[in-house]
Amino acid sequence: MEKNDIVQRLHIHTGMMERGKRNAISDVEGVRVGHVTLADGDIQTGVTAVVPACGNLFRHKLVAASQVINGFGKTTGLVQIDELGTLETPIVLTNTLSVGDCWRGLCQYMLKQDPEIGLGTGTVNPVVGECNDSFLNDIRGFHINPEHVLQAISDASADFAQGSVGAGRGTSCYQFKGGIGSSSRLVSVGSKRYTLGTLVQSNFGEMRDLRINGQPTGESALSQKTEKLKEQGSIITILATDAPMTARQLKRLCRRVTAGITRNGSIIGNGSGEIAIAFSTCQRIPHDGEEELTLKSVSDNCANLFFRAVVESVQEAILCSMLNAETVVGRQGHTRYSLREFIGKLPGLMADPS
Amino acid sequence: MEKNDIVQRLHIHTGMMERGKRNAISDVEGVRVGHVTLADGDIQTGVTAVVPACGNLFRHKLVAASQVINGFGKTTGLVQIDELGTLETPIVLTNTLSVGDCWRGLCQYMLKQDPEIGLGTGTVNPVVGECNDSFLNDIRGFHINPEHVLQAISDASADFAQGSVGAGRGTSCYQFKGGIGSSSRLVSVGSKRYTLGTLVQSNFGEMRDLRINGQPTGESALSQKTEKLKEQGSIITILATDAPMTARQLKRLCRRVTAGITRNGSIIGNGSGEIAIAFSTCQRIPHDGEEELTLKSVSDNCANLFFRAVVESVQEAILCSMLNAETVVGRQGHTRYSLREFIGKLPGLMADPS
Amino acid sequence: MEKNDIVQRLHIHTGMMERGKRNAISDVEGVRVGHVTLADGDIQTGVTAVVPACGNLFRHKLVAASQVINGFGKTTGLVQIDELGTLETPIVLTNTLSVGDCWRGLCQYMLKQDPEIGLGTGTVNPVVGECNDSFLNDIRGFHINPEHVLQAISDASADFAQGSVGAGRGTSCYQFKGGIGSSSRLVSVGSKRYTLGTLVQSNFGEMRDLRINGQPTGESALSQKTEKLKEQGSIITILATDAPMTARQLKRLCRRVTAGITRNGSIIGNGSGEIAIAFSTCQRIPHDGEEELTLKSVSDNCANLFFRAVVESVQEAILCSMLNAETVVGRQGHTRYSLREFIGKLPGLMADPS
Amino acid sequence: MEKNDIVQRLHIHTGMMERGKRNAISDVEGVRVGHVTLADGDIQTGVTAVVPACGNLFRHKLVAASQVINGFGKTTGLVQIDELGTLETPIVLTNTLSVGDCWRGLCQYMLKQDPEIGLGTGTVNPVVGECNDSFLNDIRGFHINPEHVLQAISDASADFAQGSVGAGRGTSCYQFKGGIGSSSRLVSVGSKRYTLGTLVQSNFGEMRDLRINGQPTGESALSQKTEKLKEQGSIITILATDAPMTARQLKRLCRRVTAGITRNGSIIGNGSGEIAIAFSTCQRIPHDGEEELTLKSVSDNCANLFFRAVVESVQEAILCSMLNAETVVGRQGHTRYSLREFIGKLPGLMADPS
Repeated sequence: MEKNDIVQRLHIHTGMMERGKRNAISDVEGVRVGHVTLADGDIQTGVTAVVPACGNLFRHKLVAASQVINGFGKTTGLVQIDELGTLETPIVLTNTLSVGDCWRGLCQYMLKQDPEIGLGTGTVNPVVGECNDSFLNDIRGFHINPEHVLQAISDASADFAQGSVGAGRGTSCYQFKGGIGSSSRLVSVGSKRYTLGTLVQSNFGEMRDLRINGQPTGESALSQKTEKLKEQGSIITILATDAPMTARQLKRLCRRVTAGITRNGSIIGNGSGEIAIAFSTCQRIPHDGEEELTLKSVSDNCANLFFRAVVESVQEAILCSMLNAETVVGRQGHTRYSLREFIGKLPGLMADPS
Repeated sequence: MEKNDIVQRLHIHTGMMERGKRNAISDVEGVRVGHVTLADGDIQTGVTAVVPACGNLFRHKLVAASQVINGFGKTTGLVQIDELGTLETPIVLTNTLSVGDCWRGLCQYMLKQDPEIGLGTGTVNPVVGECNDSFLNDIRGFHINPEHVLQAISDASADFAQGSVGAGRGTSCYQFKGGIGSSSRLVSVGSKRYTLGTLVQSNFGEMRDLRINGQPTGESALSQKTEKLKEQGSIITILATDAPMTARQLKRLCRRVTAGITRNGSIIGNGSGEIAIAFSTCQRIPHDGEEELTLKSVSDNCANLFFRAVVESVQEAILCSMLNAETVVGRQGHTRYSLREFIGKLPGLMADPS
Repeated sequence: MEKNDIVQRLHIHTGMMERGKRNAISDVEGVRVGHVTLADGDIQTGVTAVVPACGNLFRHKLVAASQVINGFGKTTGLVQIDELGTLETPIVLTNTLSVGDCWRGLCQYMLKQDPEIGLGTGTVNPVVGECNDSFLNDIRGFHINPEHVLQAISDASADFAQGSVGAGRGTSCYQFKGGIGSSSRLVSVGSKRYTLGTLVQSNFGEMRDLRINGQPTGESALSQKTEKLKEQGSIITILATDAPMTARQLKRLCRRVTAGITRNGSIIGNGSGEIAIAFSTCQRIPHDGEEELTLKSVSDNCANLFFRAVVESVQEAILCSMLNAETVVGRQGHTRYSLREFIGKLPGLMADPS
Repeated sequence: MEKNDIVQRLHIHTGMMERGKRNAISDVEGVRVGHVTLADGDIQTGVTAVVPACGNLFRHKLVAASQVINGFGKTTGLVQIDELGTLETPIVLTNTLSVGDCWRGLCQYMLKQDPEIGLGTGTVNPVVGECNDSFLNDIRGFHINPEHVLQAISDASADFAQGSVGAGRGTSCYQFKGGIGSSSRLVSVGSKRYTLGTLVQSNFGEMRDLRINGQPTGESALSQKTEKLKEQGSIITILATDAPMTARQLKRLCRRVTAGITRNGSIIGNGSGEIAIAFSTCQRIPHDGEEELTLKSVSDNCANLFFRAVVESVQEAILCSMLNAETVVGRQGHTRYSLREFIGKLPGLMADPS
């Protein structure tokens, strides 16, 4: 996955930590990502599925947490994650108006996996995140259907595409082309080495605010080409780690996502639904049974190591979502230019990435 | 709507406040409720729509708030209600696994109402609540489709049925038949008179815990007839008022819902998704424009008057949901008996309601 | 501690669970309670200290959580409990305006225990709860000083007084005399048996709302004797358990406190600061070190057993705080009558407790 | 107050908005700030009081909100601010272990102002924020007493000192000298012009993370001089505005403080208590009375204008706290160097500020 070294090749500073092998969320073992991309004229949208672990997630849940950074958004499933501290489905990302169809599709997927849901045992909590891609996509057309969720899940792999694919097909970031981006960091605690991986669906920010390496990248771009549009963004951030953490600790990771998002200039705009969801693959929580659980957890005294990994990897994942995207012409000819086209031409992007 | 005096006729104590004319949420002017009920063998479920006000809700929003009492539930839309303090769609209730279809249906309804959603302006935040009715209903069958939402909304009226109808068709309460219930209270502040109305979808509690008028109603019933089943309930509570309130004040109302729910013995069980949503019909918040708003709000010094109205009306709405329900035989012959059948036979229900 | 069977002797229904040996929070091994009581004319106030475990709490913390039920209160320390999920000091209760002095006193106590606080390591998070006892007490006189905290802590014992003592000396409950009350329940999970104990500082409610055993106890009392006063109450509830729980689980316990408080009629009034704090004595969290922790936790599938214990013991602790209190004449001759004086005279209190 | 143009003179980019006349929180009319500074050998600490408006704040409260960014802190008063959405005292800042004494002092100040508190009406909610200044200050010595609060309040003025004064005397920021800093921005909405002002008590961050103008300022400094110390910081941020806002809107401002804090490189460390409190001076909320209130509020559609003002002014206030501070030698000879000493010597600080 060589393209995921673009940030390094451009000498963009994101910090000091070591990256994982793929520099992607799938560096956390077991995490896989799949896409369905619809790209046809006015239809520029899709579905991205993050499959957090193998097996029946409903029966063997993961510890999880979430944080609403700015709640102008429609993500489902957070109420139960917050109460029970567990994730029991893949996380599906899509466009805002397709949340219902993806909810249905994810629900069907889970029912197929487990014939007892809603029969011999309780129901299931589908987690669906979204961004508003209506600038490029005919969002009112409801082009996503439940079947696309099943396809995205079955497409899931540790090696996955980034940029203008899946749920990131139609999104915008700092008024350039946004999309799906990913990054990872390695965390050493004593003799143990953990991985923290990040995936974002980026769809936020105003061009004039974009600063890369402390340079006024966006301001300079404004004078070159731009399309004025009211910000109505969002960013969904998914954090995965193999370190043992409680839901409280994972929530603290989610709160540091803000620091990653704002590093390139965002002010966390009013219309931007910013949601973070984190899970640990380290242990499985059984759906049934009343036995006492024995759970590991890292000490909060090492929290800063993980916080730093979150901040660096979120910043880089956003840059990856932009630098891996291609220029997309969509609904009514609306165009979002790839930031890649400006390499060598804008402050903060002057380095030669070859 | 004479049947809504059942609690009074049975001399069940809920407090001291005066009821509205209908003793229903529709005593708050403009609030209407509609149902679609599916009742056929293994299919015992439905949709209930609470239409909070006339006109285009998306363009002219209501001040609103929510509170998660116990988050083992899948209600959608709360993230944005909490952030922006507004409600911009009807509230739709259904069974747990039909949340996705109702989300889609409600979304379609809104898009039809407003051709600019997702085009010239932002997207919309559908609010869908749910209870798990799988004891009586073939919930895995996905028998609700988006069209049912449109039907329920168009059925909405100030005079509406209660008990085993709509989204309450398949629900259980204290292991008796639950359902849709409603009640209201009048609140006088100085020379002004306000109404607070409540609607519940009741689906919680264990029979042994039910106490009516301080009597061990449930315990006595246990010795008569019962079906043992692990509690996996929920209760969605909707509060409406014509009093002017900020989102913060409405959230405080939502927090008092717990006091109403627990008055008949519930312990707010682990598996019970308990969610409250409140809105005020007093003022409309424009979708567009940057003008300064001038908003009225009651003084927090009168809060107790409204808190009392919440507690009393929630307690009564739950009793109404049970006492207006009929006995339902559903999936695989599973049966929930109407509490009405026990009038005159159980402590707390001895009074003659004739 | 025979007096703590008063609720049983009066045949007041609180549920079905077995009580601990003392029917007090100190049934959780290691928990001790101490009081300093000031009772002299216009001065009717005090300090109550709940010492949750032996040893240096700062170095070996307890897992803990809190919940604000109604935030019209001044309790300190909750911000850090929520973030880190730990308790590192005794919990001190007092009157509202003495929070500062008790904070100072508790801080001094901790500094004496640990010479490294604020020197070689971080600072400490004193937890101080309060109720407004100004009806009976000259609260403006600042009669509590830091030294009283040290005294209350050194007075701590598993056998402790209840009623109009310590921080409950000047409080009122349902316009009768309130105070300190305690109760406990035993919880069996498989072959294991746990204890859950509760302590309250009760200072809330209006007389007309008080219902005992479903009877209109308060309403009847109104016709006998009363003093009209605007409610400006509070109730601080402390939950202790020896069961292994995460902070998330303890927070869920705290949320059920509402159900216990409202069982005798309260509507959770506007002016009532209602705060719950819970801790588990099962495991100690080291202050230092970066080692991975191995923590036990009960399964959420058994949560209802503990929720029920919370609801029953909170209801009973409140009744104990009232029924163990004596009538107090305080500031300017203001009087709060003991509920005990009404035994045999009011509905709900007719049973002979002899 | 010419020294408050230091950030401009150094050409440090913080954004594009216009500053207020003083570039300080006191640009919001009525806001005043006072200090008491103790600077004597091992004693390097103090008190800073932010007086938000004239008159009796208890009788005529301000709309307010707070946000816990990282809860490793001991700030008091947030519970009630969150519940009631009002501020009724000045905000006092000090060192961590002096919270109790300042609480007492602030309480005394309020009781003197209003003879009815705790007598004919309820009690008062003192708001005290803190940072751990133990690196430079003998924090265990409890050198602050209640009287210092009265002095700081009476010292309050629209023109006030910044840097190593008051509660900022002993604090550290990015391992340089931190302290009190302030900044402001003007916000135009239609024909109206509002002011947003910020004051920080800065005490957070690691030197290696400090980036100014996108340059590795801290990393370069490391090679010059440094003292290694585990981060145990905090930052208290106070936002004031004359724009009409609800508590919900002010809370949204508080949430953007994170974006300001992280702009110079912070990762919101584990041990850093990061708290934001915001108030609007536009309207007063009467303590008594049950009359309906008529409140103005800006439209959320203009939120971004204010969010941007928060982010820019917080970033600048932090830089002001550092660049206005002098080098301080404190407890046991511990030294924190002023960032001012590095002007012209470190990347990001190369510009000539003359």
